[in-house]
Amino acid sequence: MSSIPSGELAERIRQTGARRIVLQIPDGLKRQAVPLVRALRAEGIEVAAVAGDPCYGSCDLSLDAVALTGADLLVHIGHAPVDEREGVLFEHLPFDFDPAVVAAAVPLLTGPTVGLVTTVQHAHLLEGVAAVLGEYGIATEVADEGGRTPLAGQVLGCSYANARALTAPEILYVGTGVFHPIGVQMATQRRVIALDPYTGDVQEVSADRLLRRRFALIERARGAESFGILLSTKSGQARPALAERLLALSERAVVITMREVTAAEMTNFGCGAYVNTACPRLAYDDQVRFPVPLLTPQEFEILCGVRAWEDYAIDEI
Amino acid sequence: MSSIPSGELAERIRQTGARRIVLQIPDGLKRQAVPLVRALRAEGIEVAAVAGDPCYGSCDLSLDAVALTGADLLVHIGHAPVDEREGVLFEHLPFDFDPAVVAAAVPLLTGPTVGLVTTVQHAHLLEGVAAVLGEYGIATEVADEGGRTPLAGQVLGCSYANARALTAPEILYVGTGVFHPIGVQMATQRRVIALDPYTGDVQEVSADRLLRRRFALIERARGAESFGILLSTKSGQARPALAERLLALSERAVVITMREVTAAEMTNFGCGAYVNTACPRLAYDDQVRFPVPLLTPQEFEILCGVRAWEDYAIDEI
Repeated sequence: MSSIPSGELAERIRQTGARRIVLQIPDGLKRQAVPLVRALRAEGIEVAAVAGDPCYGSCDLSLDAVALTGADLLVHIGHAPVDEREGVLFEHLPFDFDPAVVAAAVPLLTGPTVGLVTTVQHAHLLEGVAAVLGEYGIATEVADEGGRTPLAGQVLGCSYANARALTAPEILYVGTGVFHPIGVQMATQRRVIALDPYTGDVQEVSADRLLRRRFALIERARGAESFGILLSTKSGQARPALAERLLALSERAVVITMREVTAAEMTNFGCGAYVNTACPRLAYDDQVRFPVPLLTPQEFEILCGVRAWEDYAIDEI
Repeated sequence: MSSIPSGELAERIRQTGARRIVLQIPDGLKRQAVPLVRALRAEGIEVAAVAGDPCYGSCDLSLDAVALTGADLLVHIGHAPVDEREGVLFEHLPFDFDPAVVAAAVPLLTGPTVGLVTTVQHAHLLEGVAAVLGEYGIATEVADEGGRTPLAGQVLGCSYANARALTAPEILYVGTGVFHPIGVQMATQRRVIALDPYTGDVQEVSADRLLRRRFALIERARGAESFGILLSTKSGQARPALAERLLALSERAVVITMREVTAAEMTNFGCGAYVNTACPRLAYDDQVRFPVPLLTPQEFEILCGVRAWEDYAIDEI
């Protein structure tokens, strides 16, 4: 992708009336931070600081850096907002691909209508994708539920509202990786096709293997002498009421607040298992990094006997 | 050392009138957190959460966890306060040794009077150490400057006020490691003897080797295309005015806020050198962990030509 457009960004910042900003950039783009600061300074923007903590989403706003430096605006690059915030300018970065690539998915689509979902950086291309599918006689449906996913058709690893709202029996995910489409499948129980728009690879995804692993983890966690209920302190990941409710389910449970959930911090506490109320992806996608089971809230409810196995549900915020 | 005394701690918590607490424990003692929570619950104390982020001092209070969980007291274990805080109970943990061990240092002491310094966990033993030295005809001096070091004779890696206030030409540091006594030597320019009270090892310390390494780092940093001025967001490490002043010294400088200063976060930004306004120990003691020079504020001033080499000074908060 091209570098962050500093001229347009400076104009948007000026329009807010901000006097002094803090810049927040996701980890994969941090190398562009120093050149961007210089370009913004050349445009007359006062940059008090760049936020240097790890950042993977707009659920993790560096509001502490704004307060500390006396800035009056946080410019958050790369993500659409998961919640309403004053004093934050969200600048997500569109990543283009050629909508014609969706032709590769046509042989796997069975219905007359398909629902479309994607991630933030490709949401602007869904219209083009729909047009191409139309040429193949396939009708499309895109949901615009809002909430944590303000862009039409957008899904997040913590929110599948724009998938669940679809009525089509079949859903096409356009984007990289299988994490999001597996989430769509778990959240909707529909048939889900994933298309990588850069490689043209297309596949039907299934949550079965993930679910078998999760069920095994619940069993492994059962014998834990203590459970650490992880409570995130990040702006858009903190679920204190949920942590409190889970704490009440077991005398073996203790709430542990964490900013970054790491294997090192977990190991320090020595609990036999943990329960994740932070970013849902940590449990589903990062279990391999952790030495002991990291259960979702729903999985812990199953372990504690207050939820039936048949009522297994994906964790969303 | 013995485990944290839960009965006494519960009594001190009750005396504050707190209804609901968050417990913060340094990394080396986190394994005791879950048993301590259970013991406190048995005493009738409501523990909303344990703070799970890394913690190496009372400069890093988990006030965010208190706010998030609706607690009314942070119980901070293991350190004396570096600043005045309402709503925080500090419970430092005394670590005993036999004061008679100081006899091992006597052959290296040259004057009739020696100044005594130590770290928080041994401060309660300085009277005993002074009594033993008195038996050898050596007078002792202990300073009680307050500030970030509220215990008499206490020094911190970021504050040597209780060393600088001494009038004796010779200072005895009783404690483990050479980091603190080298800091005492740099801060005071006196003769400094270090005694490890557990092994009985005694040595005269010198900052010369450290200073040669630091001077070489300043030279290495000179060619950096950009400088990242690190600004900590931790409660007792944040020095925004200092960061702002250093920023003004170079057009190549950018302020970067960081909670945990790690090699990974630094590498993300790709600056040729960084300047540390967080915990001073990061530059002096942890340089080996970082891929590029991490200068102290004073070293950056030398690099920028606003401080003379002869005016090299240790960084303290």
